[in-house]
Amino acid sequence: MTAQKEEQFFKKEKGCLIVISGPSCAGKGTVTEIVHQHCPDIKFSVSETTRKPRPMEKEGVDYFYQSVENFEKRIEENMYLEYAKVHGNYYGTPRDYVEKMIDGGYDVILEIDIQGAAQIRKTFKKAVYIFIAPPSMEELRRRIHSRGTETKEEMERRLSCAYEEMTNADDYSYIVINENKETAARQVRAIITAEKCRTERLINHVLEILKR
Amino acid sequence: MTAQKEEQFFKKEKGCLIVISGPSCAGKGTVTEIVHQHCPDIKFSVSETTRKPRPMEKEGVDYFYQSVENFEKRIEENMYLEYAKVHGNYYGTPRDYVEKMIDGGYDVILEIDIQGAAQIRKTFKKAVYIFIAPPSMEELRRRIHSRGTETKEEMERRLSCAYEEMTNADDYSYIVINENKETAARQVRAIITAEKCRTERLINHVLEILKR
Repeated sequence: MTAQKEEQFFKKEKGCLIVISGPSCAGKGTVTEIVHQHCPDIKFSVSETTRKPRPMEKEGVDYFYQSVENFEKRIEENMYLEYAKVHGNYYGTPRDYVEKMIDGGYDVILEIDIQGAAQIRKTFKKAVYIFIAPPSMEELRRRIHSRGTETKEEMERRLSCAYEEMTNADDYSYIVINENKETAARQVRAIITAEKCRTERLINHVLEILKR
Repeated sequence: MTAQKEEQFFKKEKGCLIVISGPSCAGKGTVTEIVHQHCPDIKFSVSETTRKPRPMEKEGVDYFYQSVENFEKRIEENMYLEYAKVHGNYYGTPRDYVEKMIDGGYDVILEIDIQGAAQIRKTFKKAVYIFIAPPSMEELRRRIHSRGTETKEEMERRLSCAYEEMTNADDYSYIVINENKETAARQVRAIITAEKCRTERLINHVLEILKR
């Protein structure tokens, strides 16, 4: 991007970082996807991984694919806001993309697991943390079972992990109970709109109105 | 209302008090009116006054009309959340209606001037305070002039008062710039939705989900 184009592209005010998390199978991916469809202006961070692309996945849409060597080099250079190794593969949120968008005035959504959100919290105190919760543990169990791709043991492990993760809800600013995905997405959008109206974000604007 | 009907009417969780204020002619009345049309579940507090009803006004819709004697008795009994004497007439927000609705789980909107909001703030620390600001001081001047019912001196007094009132914006949790009344009303509704999702309001609900 040329300097001139970049100037037109970026806005004066900083953007918000919105972190959407919650237990496995609470529906954070689905809710985030609906928010994405309604809010084309919001940027969605794409993770990097050392896992091989699956047949339908696209570079830059599902993930950015990295070699293990590159990923580990980038860890040492502090290039990830958070990262984790799962089943032998690295997954991480690239710091540069997120920081550039926020500094440029764009809101960025990160949809991330509980452990990742805890890592982000150490760096971004001012981010908006939204916890997506299932309407009941039976419903969560039903959703885990309906995925159907796992063994019974794996499903039980996932459910007990979800119980544990539910106790993290009070680390978040907002809780959205995902009984209905459209309602939940509407609540997430309302939270983003409300956060843009917070006095600490707009007080300078009011002072400028007074000067004119 | 019978005890049984009251039980059906009231909800388990407490409601929110939403205080909408801002300088004269910023449009807080119009914005609140649009929110009212979209949110039939929200209760709107009706003020009491000792002023005589104007031809089109209705008891219980525009105001509850009180005698001076009654009003002063009710001041002494601490029956007003806030009150003021303007041009020789009393105006006040009845405490009982607001507290009953909030305890019963209803959200209540108070649309009130800056001085009234400051009085409410002493009692209701947890209320949601929304400041409606004009998009510019020229626009505010235009809106004051277009009312057209006042002398030039009165209009200048109102404008200089509005300047003063604008400096109170940082006492509020949220600022809504009223450039377009529909957008402003949508932002107010988003703020109310977001406030209902705050973790301190929903954490007990999540703990109950975990128990079931």
